[in-house]
Amino acid sequence: MDGDGDRSRKRGGGREARRAERTSGAHGAVHVPYIVRGIPTYDVMGEEGLIRIEAAADRILAETGIEFRDDPEALELWRRAGAHVEGTLVKFPKDMLREIVATAPAEFTQFARNPANNVRIGGKNVVFAPAYGSPFVMDLDKGRRFGTIEDFENFIKLAQSSPWFHHSGGTICEPTDVAVNKRHLDMVYAHVRYSDRAFLGSVTAAERAADSVEMARIVFGREFAENNCVIMGNFNVNSPLVWDGTMTRGMREYARAGQGTVLVPFILGGAMGPVTSAGAIAQSLAETLAGCALTQLERKGAPVVFGNFLSSMSLRSGSPTFGTPEPAIGSMVIGQLARRLNLPLRCSGNFTTSKLPDAQAMTEGTMSMLAAVHCGANYILHSAGFLDGLLSMSYEKFVLDTDLCGALHSYLKGVQVDDDQLAVDAFAEVGPGNHFFGCSHTMAHYETAFWDSETADNEPFEKWEANGSVDAATRANRLWKKRLAEYEAPPLDQGIDEALREFIARRKAAVADMWY
Amino acid sequence: MDGDGDRSRKRGGGREARRAERTSGAHGAVHVPYIVRGIPTYDVMGEEGLIRIEAAADRILAETGIEFRDDPEALELWRRAGAHVEGTLVKFPKDMLREIVATAPAEFTQFARNPANNVRIGGKNVVFAPAYGSPFVMDLDKGRRFGTIEDFENFIKLAQSSPWFHHSGGTICEPTDVAVNKRHLDMVYAHVRYSDRAFLGSVTAAERAADSVEMARIVFGREFAENNCVIMGNFNVNSPLVWDGTMTRGMREYARAGQGTVLVPFILGGAMGPVTSAGAIAQSLAETLAGCALTQLERKGAPVVFGNFLSSMSLRSGSPTFGTPEPAIGSMVIGQLARRLNLPLRCSGNFTTSKLPDAQAMTEGTMSMLAAVHCGANYILHSAGFLDGLLSMSYEKFVLDTDLCGALHSYLKGVQVDDDQLAVDAFAEVGPGNHFFGCSHTMAHYETAFWDSETADNEPFEKWEANGSVDAATRANRLWKKRLAEYEAPPLDQGIDEALREFIARRKAAVADMWY
Repeated sequence: MDGDGDRSRKRGGGREARRAERTSGAHGAVHVPYIVRGIPTYDVMGEEGLIRIEAAADRILAETGIEFRDDPEALELWRRAGAHVEGTLVKFPKDMLREIVATAPAEFTQFARNPANNVRIGGKNVVFAPAYGSPFVMDLDKGRRFGTIEDFENFIKLAQSSPWFHHSGGTICEPTDVAVNKRHLDMVYAHVRYSDRAFLGSVTAAERAADSVEMARIVFGREFAENNCVIMGNFNVNSPLVWDGTMTRGMREYARAGQGTVLVPFILGGAMGPVTSAGAIAQSLAETLAGCALTQLERKGAPVVFGNFLSSMSLRSGSPTFGTPEPAIGSMVIGQLARRLNLPLRCSGNFTTSKLPDAQAMTEGTMSMLAAVHCGANYILHSAGFLDGLLSMSYEKFVLDTDLCGALHSYLKGVQVDDDQLAVDAFAEVGPGNHFFGCSHTMAHYETAFWDSETADNEPFEKWEANGSVDAATRANRLWKKRLAEYEAPPLDQGIDEALREFIARRKAAVADMWY
Repeated sequence: MDGDGDRSRKRGGGREARRAERTSGAHGAVHVPYIVRGIPTYDVMGEEGLIRIEAAADRILAETGIEFRDDPEALELWRRAGAHVEGTLVKFPKDMLREIVATAPAEFTQFARNPANNVRIGGKNVVFAPAYGSPFVMDLDKGRRFGTIEDFENFIKLAQSSPWFHHSGGTICEPTDVAVNKRHLDMVYAHVRYSDRAFLGSVTAAERAADSVEMARIVFGREFAENNCVIMGNFNVNSPLVWDGTMTRGMREYARAGQGTVLVPFILGGAMGPVTSAGAIAQSLAETLAGCALTQLERKGAPVVFGNFLSSMSLRSGSPTFGTPEPAIGSMVIGQLARRLNLPLRCSGNFTTSKLPDAQAMTEGTMSMLAAVHCGANYILHSAGFLDGLLSMSYEKFVLDTDLCGALHSYLKGVQVDDDQLAVDAFAEVGPGNHFFGCSHTMAHYETAFWDSETADNEPFEKWEANGSVDAATRANRLWKKRLAEYEAPPLDQGIDEALREFIARRKAAVADMWY
């Protein structure tokens, strides 16, 4: 049911070898490049509701309009496409944007430097990537502090060494010890050097986007990169209803190069959008649709991912809240809307406002992560590490979340039904009142039957107590240290490595450091 | 969308009063007697798979059969109904059981002594009840110890004081300081005395079942109890494929009195059933179907709930595991099968093997609890308190889970779509680039827009740190103590109270204490 396995990781051998793999935990588990879901999406809204939300989005687009600030070329593209441009405000006739986005692919491949790790984005495919954008990092030993390039590299290594991840992500944390206008070079380099999976480039300025794409060309070859998606960028709407030039110039840079863009509103209900879900969803549809269409005006057929990031707010303090029920349900509706546009989908992730990898973190995190897989998201950014309302990447939470990603591999397989899975012969063999422990059906299946968590403790209470009564966060603390100690970098072609270093040195030498 | 509110709890007053309710937390929140779901069930399996599983269950029933031990009357009922009885083994011709269960109601009301708390079980209704059956209790102060009648009463009080619970449950923990053959009397009394919601009676022996039903008759009146469901019992299959006489005699006692039964296999895959999900689901269907049919042979139309309790096992230790992905998905398939039988459904709950209210507890707990609401369960036992693989009731986890139950009230509402919810006028009022904080649409909705957790901390990091950097378990520890300190018993008619005490004294005096 899953996609083709990564052959470079599969070990040979028979039953003993398979058992050794299983009992060695996730490290010995079979990595798949991405998940092909075996269960349907969870469609919570009926046709009538969807049509009303689409009509509301159409009305926002036609009557309120969307501002495109600080990007005259984007305005010119809109003008030529037939939109009504009044200053920086753009209004869209009904159906115009739907017609334009029809040229975007429903499904595409992002190539990885190890071809076994290429990911298909769209359709029934699900790709997990780390959290993105935190200025701080946290662990149980040192608490919260600003992220550094060492932290950044550590998280790439942790993602790379997990068989339950498919994508290296982008700005996993801000490496605040590197100048703002140069850190994108070190980040892209770290993704290439410490991971052999697909990754995201920089988006914080058009020239940084261009540098990111250029580095991808060095890795994949100029000609290959011209005709294939080898890097993506994640771009945010300045909700409500504003696309800033920094973002649109960056995303046009990626699209012009034939590279992928992920376009995401950030709607905190009651602040950057209405406080009611239906309104926030309509706004989200309008904002993302306009962005997706702009990529197609820049280059027809450029891969683009329809993004979603709904959130709620505390009624008592006005603080943002994450992992709450309303955005979880809202995400499922947005998934339905994205499929009606035939576009790949990015949705939610593992969100929380908790400041510790505790019960709150995983209640909120599990609810939002399940919403992401239920809604049919093809690319799930923020799959691991997210704490503190996206302000901090947590080493322990990263490991706990990665384990949940592993569980979701089993979850998304669904239930297979054939005579063997139905255990037809086993009932005849065992009969009423006897146990299935030793029967031949159990022996044939027990090694692969159930998800085997690395962070959960399933031992009896007495044994757990004898082992020190530790909680899941403490186990996760031990596990990330073990992972980093055992990490081995995947091989990288020396010529590529040198060319990247040379490019970086040249670009760094060209300008003075900027620190804000 | 929800059911009728409990008028006795709703406060009067306008906007200020509503705000006071919300800001006072869950205690001021509006209690509903049960949830009427506004989102569909999550149907993960197609028609073809369901038909194959039903055929496999039919084959188990016809060829392997089910043992009914130590209950000659049950065997006689089967014989008369046309089953093949060989000793204690009963085999069922195809379709026989489906025809028999057709007399069971698809939906029924269990009455509470406060009529505002009556629950409808079946259809789109969802009823939350506490966990059931732990010998131990736990809290962060005193650790794990055997449960007592004081603990039992405490958990009833905690459930009663939560607006997010609908049902008082049954053996919330074993009150091990009361004799085994007498504790059912104290347990039923505690449910009546400290809660005004519906509850479960005892099932551990036919005479204890009879005592439970008799006490319900005292509370509700003999005539009313003859024609209405005023108590239910939760009965377990001795999987695989055995119904013990203790259980069948008890459940026939309830059914004969026209009272409700909840019938539940306990299938730990690889031990009490096949290690593969499809086989475990087929077995579950066979076992539950046979039990449901027996209630109808005892009394046509007796309310019966189709139960499900799938679990997995650790491949490394052979220990049971809970809250894992395979049973979560399996539960959704069982939900589909129950609906095809037109029977009310009990499913999973908030499960975990963790020994602490930590990240593991809520990862596993949230995954299994969401499966329970997604699969369409109408009665969700084990909604709160479950730790340690069902061996311990946790005070802290009870409060954390209750909070999750609150979130699920919002979740199950789904997304409402009308002009007001679509915020049509708000977009015109606010426009691109402005915030929605103060707009009239936000002002009209913000008090009720989002679920407001009592245990989550959404404050900024600095404020959280200044408040002592406490984790969710510590907040829960404070909260359950506050709840118990503030608890007030609902009024109980003095005549009923005296009659119950008299009955209990008489029954206790009649026999010597048994301690095992």
